[in-house]
Amino acid sequence: MNAPTKLEDAFHQLIHQNHLWGLWEIASQMTPHPRPEAIAHQWKWSVLEQVVKQSATAVPVGDERRAMQLFNPGLNGQWATTNTLIAAVQVLLPGEIARAHRHTPAAIRFIMQGNGAYTAVEGEKVVMHEGDLVLTPSWQWHDHGNETQETVVWMDGLDVPLTKALNCIFFQMHDARRAEESKPVNGSKALYGHGHLAPTWVKERPRFSPLMLYSFDQTMEALHALREREGSPYEGIALEYTHPQTGGPVMPTMSCRIQLLRRGEKLKARRVTGSSVFHVVQGQGRTLIDGKPFEWAKGDIIALPSWALHEHANTGPGEAILFSISDRPVIEALGFYREATS
Amino acid sequence: MNAPTKLEDAFHQLIHQNHLWGLWEIASQMTPHPRPEAIAHQWKWSVLEQVVKQSATAVPVGDERRAMQLFNPGLNGQWATTNTLIAAVQVLLPGEIARAHRHTPAAIRFIMQGNGAYTAVEGEKVVMHEGDLVLTPSWQWHDHGNETQETVVWMDGLDVPLTKALNCIFFQMHDARRAEESKPVNGSKALYGHGHLAPTWVKERPRFSPLMLYSFDQTMEALHALREREGSPYEGIALEYTHPQTGGPVMPTMSCRIQLLRRGEKLKARRVTGSSVFHVVQGQGRTLIDGKPFEWAKGDIIALPSWALHEHANTGPGEAILFSISDRPVIEALGFYREATS
Amino acid sequence: MNAPTKLEDAFHQLIHQNHLWGLWEIASQMTPHPRPEAIAHQWKWSVLEQVVKQSATAVPVGDERRAMQLFNPGLNGQWATTNTLIAAVQVLLPGEIARAHRHTPAAIRFIMQGNGAYTAVEGEKVVMHEGDLVLTPSWQWHDHGNETQETVVWMDGLDVPLTKALNCIFFQMHDARRAEESKPVNGSKALYGHGHLAPTWVKERPRFSPLMLYSFDQTMEALHALREREGSPYEGIALEYTHPQTGGPVMPTMSCRIQLLRRGEKLKARRVTGSSVFHVVQGQGRTLIDGKPFEWAKGDIIALPSWALHEHANTGPGEAILFSISDRPVIEALGFYREATS
Amino acid sequence: MNAPTKLEDAFHQLIHQNHLWGLWEIASQMTPHPRPEAIAHQWKWSVLEQVVKQSATAVPVGDERRAMQLFNPGLNGQWATTNTLIAAVQVLLPGEIARAHRHTPAAIRFIMQGNGAYTAVEGEKVVMHEGDLVLTPSWQWHDHGNETQETVVWMDGLDVPLTKALNCIFFQMHDARRAEESKPVNGSKALYGHGHLAPTWVKERPRFSPLMLYSFDQTMEALHALREREGSPYEGIALEYTHPQTGGPVMPTMSCRIQLLRRGEKLKARRVTGSSVFHVVQGQGRTLIDGKPFEWAKGDIIALPSWALHEHANTGPGEAILFSISDRPVIEALGFYREATS
Repeated sequence: MNAPTKLEDAFHQLIHQNHLWGLWEIASQMTPHPRPEAIAHQWKWSVLEQVVKQSATAVPVGDERRAMQLFNPGLNGQWATTNTLIAAVQVLLPGEIARAHRHTPAAIRFIMQGNGAYTAVEGEKVVMHEGDLVLTPSWQWHDHGNETQETVVWMDGLDVPLTKALNCIFFQMHDARRAEESKPVNGSKALYGHGHLAPTWVKERPRFSPLMLYSFDQTMEALHALREREGSPYEGIALEYTHPQTGGPVMPTMSCRIQLLRRGEKLKARRVTGSSVFHVVQGQGRTLIDGKPFEWAKGDIIALPSWALHEHANTGPGEAILFSISDRPVIEALGFYREATS
Repeated sequence: MNAPTKLEDAFHQLIHQNHLWGLWEIASQMTPHPRPEAIAHQWKWSVLEQVVKQSATAVPVGDERRAMQLFNPGLNGQWATTNTLIAAVQVLLPGEIARAHRHTPAAIRFIMQGNGAYTAVEGEKVVMHEGDLVLTPSWQWHDHGNETQETVVWMDGLDVPLTKALNCIFFQMHDARRAEESKPVNGSKALYGHGHLAPTWVKERPRFSPLMLYSFDQTMEALHALREREGSPYEGIALEYTHPQTGGPVMPTMSCRIQLLRRGEKLKARRVTGSSVFHVVQGQGRTLIDGKPFEWAKGDIIALPSWALHEHANTGPGEAILFSISDRPVIEALGFYREATS
Repeated sequence: MNAPTKLEDAFHQLIHQNHLWGLWEIASQMTPHPRPEAIAHQWKWSVLEQVVKQSATAVPVGDERRAMQLFNPGLNGQWATTNTLIAAVQVLLPGEIARAHRHTPAAIRFIMQGNGAYTAVEGEKVVMHEGDLVLTPSWQWHDHGNETQETVVWMDGLDVPLTKALNCIFFQMHDARRAEESKPVNGSKALYGHGHLAPTWVKERPRFSPLMLYSFDQTMEALHALREREGSPYEGIALEYTHPQTGGPVMPTMSCRIQLLRRGEKLKARRVTGSSVFHVVQGQGRTLIDGKPFEWAKGDIIALPSWALHEHANTGPGEAILFSISDRPVIEALGFYREATS
Repeated sequence: MNAPTKLEDAFHQLIHQNHLWGLWEIASQMTPHPRPEAIAHQWKWSVLEQVVKQSATAVPVGDERRAMQLFNPGLNGQWATTNTLIAAVQVLLPGEIARAHRHTPAAIRFIMQGNGAYTAVEGEKVVMHEGDLVLTPSWQWHDHGNETQETVVWMDGLDVPLTKALNCIFFQMHDARRAEESKPVNGSKALYGHGHLAPTWVKERPRFSPLMLYSFDQTMEALHALREREGSPYEGIALEYTHPQTGGPVMPTMSCRIQLLRRGEKLKARRVTGSSVFHVVQGQGRTLIDGKPFEWAKGDIIALPSWALHEHANTGPGEAILFSISDRPVIEALGFYREATS
């Protein structure tokens, strides 16, 4: 390109001062494929464990939660683990309550340590055990409480960066520390948690799953019933948690998955549009992300950006299990889903 | 109305000979509400049991099934238990095979007696136990076999009258006595039968449920988890078996339901558009249908026509459980669903 | 098959007296493919015209309509043109009103003769011209009136046999001769009739099309815009009238189509599940149905049963246009659609 | 809050160096309601016109387009008119061609000046006139050409910021300057542009509207047919351009609307989640946005951020017409839609 003429210069000055910009000045942002600012990153359990322990004494649960947010190093201090998702590690000590509030960002909890604490969701007390998935969908009142004698730790997953990018964040603090219990304990599990049988007298059809608790025992049952199957060459025995009334994702903005890698299993590489956060539930392995190896073990959390080529391998002595959240439902609803194997 | 004039007579003669008929001649068929020709009718287990026993020696399984079809007394010898549904009681002796075939009418089996026989559905052997619901959806190859030492009895439910009314019956006999087994035994249960978790590598999205076996133990678990709930004033603790990929009915033409009536429970009267066939799984009770009482006990089968006012009561010493099939998905898909309480 | 034994005889007697029938006695009803009782039949305009003329003096409009119903000769006097559809030719003289009523069977009108009469549908007066399609969906109040100086003739199409087979007929006579006009004349056309533009303030999403009038001028415009296209080898330039809010059929139970056969065009043979009624809007041609030729011209009406092999040819000097109704949406919603070319 | 203790300090240091951040440090980002960084902003036609004129000589069409992008002053130089949308004013001189390319961001064009130029979309040449809406959906090849004697100007609208936030941008330059014409000129209008009539032989069901051209004459016809209606108290006679096969928005990521304000009409205030860009097609008026008045006239473009309270008034001597794009389909698909009137 030649040096700009005076005419060109004057023109650019005119447009810039009027908040206009030439396409030719910015067209390089139309990249041949996604180039996320978020990077692949791993939070090791060895570090998280230390943080969990110190957090107990260092910071109070306060009006907020004792939740350590995983900031993606590529995102310049944004509240984001990937472009659309935020993950956190949350700690609740015996006797503590995390005050009731609600917000439009949807949340999930995957229980990492401890049994018997609860999340109350829109009036339903949901008792949590290790490996359980608990939902707190968009704009549902929720508080957390630990009436047990042990510290409870879970991974939070929320769609905060997405909700923020859409300028749709609403937040409300509850008047009371705990919202009123208006439903039976684990009541949604009674309604939806036993096979494919739907209560005919329930008329509500929310966008989010009305089942708040996906118990780990059922998850393991499902994985093990399929452990001899071929599964996906890219994901192994990968199951999506589903909305009982639609068969679709548990939330319109987040998909939750559980994935079994058999002993010695080495999956094939693939890239997909959309980002994920993985949590190692069991076992150990190695994930290559755009050529960089991430050695993982129980408790680790890994951020996987959009379109990163990734391949998982189980390198441990037993089965490995990965839980993950992703923005796949958004990507698919808007017609942006793609995959490639190189 | 006055006596017809000559002109009128001539006109009617003209139109009738040309296969035309005046609306005024037939308008009474536009009834204020449905007036089914099918009637409410009960087949007592005491009779069915005798029939089952005698059938073993009286008729061979042959190329057809040893299936005794429940003909509604109001339907003049039509192959129909209600206007849209046919139910039957089928008997398979030890060592017998009911030859493989397929047809567009969809079928369900609800196991009444015996454990361990199988229905093979499109290559999947499904092992059946008492209280199980087994699907053989439209146009899926299926054969039945009894490799156990005991006689097996089940209730068949099909949408034959509907399929026939729509002029959509196709039938094909398999070349072989048994279709080839191409899938793991109870394989669809492994894929879909454990909680709300969907195998991500399966891309098929059939109109019918891909889960062929709804086990009785899960059904009972679900019913009992809800036995303290209020449920429906008309149906009690009534659950619909659902399609895991849609949350909807198991077939586009039939809904299957299971219903718990607690001890002493007396439900309210209601009428709905669409017809059903009930089977008593457990307990005893009384159903009033358009004022006529039907006293029922385990094993009975009852036909309930469209728009009949019906109310169920548990009159026995324990819980009562009713299984039923209905044409509700058709009625709803076409916009004809209505209900009334008197 | 050998002669029945005494045991067999006794068994059959037992089951029959208990309203049971052996599958082996009736299995021949599971036919390899549909065998409709309805036959292909043609009502010639030369006959219909004579009937229309005589009807004016022979029968009053009364509380009913002066509607001559096309009875399929194969259906033994049932109120049915095919297994699911009834067509009729209706005549309204200057000054007449056909009293307001509503019924669950849905109806369409295709205007054959006369301009300026109206059908009032749920408070909207719809003014009708030749070639227009007018809807009166399920359970919508409707009356017809002719304030012009000429006799008006149209073809009615209803899903009466289907609604009856489903035991879902409801009918109600209006207290008044004419239901109250509560909406602008042709108001739904103003809302939905100009391009693909939807009024954002309307929240209703009925199952049936909210557009009551599909004007012939638009239909012709659409056909002619496509007259150089290849179209379908079986149907030519065939367009389906659509529900503006879904893009699907105008009613859940009936599809309406318009079809252009270019000069000299000879379409290929096909059979489909589901039945239709054709009306010749313009031109002349020949349709072979299961090998039998039907020569048709403007004004004729032809019943086409399910699974009949049919091929259309334009044999006239100009373009031919066929309007038709079918039960296709039912067939598709229930998963029964099939086609074959021989 | 008290001053942090040493323990707290050490803890924060630990977590920050490990890319963790306390929720208590950032919770203020969970705002009670959306607080967009984008601001309401107006680009006056008087300025745009000058830019359009100068652009003709100052910059070539090159391999890119001569498209001046409207940068929201609140968004710090991001390529964005609102958080999710980018609008631009594009100029094509007689004889010019804007080279063929495709990208995952979807685009619309609303023609501001000039008649007879074209956009070729996936093989279909679409001829454009003032007031027309032309689609170039996600990943469809498109080039623009001006074979007329006059300069053509249009408004572009794209979902670039959204696609970027989702890390889903793909872009590809075509090998040839112009993609091959494989379809009839304005062919999609022939297929879908005449009333609610769908070609039965077309099997494709894209997520985006298959109708590429929404002609202004139809738009005006629709608006004028409704000009006596009440319409919406917040939007007046507001129509959404729809996907002919679904009745929904033209793209999964963008809604296009046209809106008539009658003479003297003053609409009520409302805020909604989601952002829009308005373009004044005709007339003049005033829009109050969060209390700030924007006086507008033909040709102006206005950015409206999420949740901004806005009210439109027609202050001119005749009817006013506003065209707008918004991210409403995204907001609704993800369950984030809300509105409030204060």
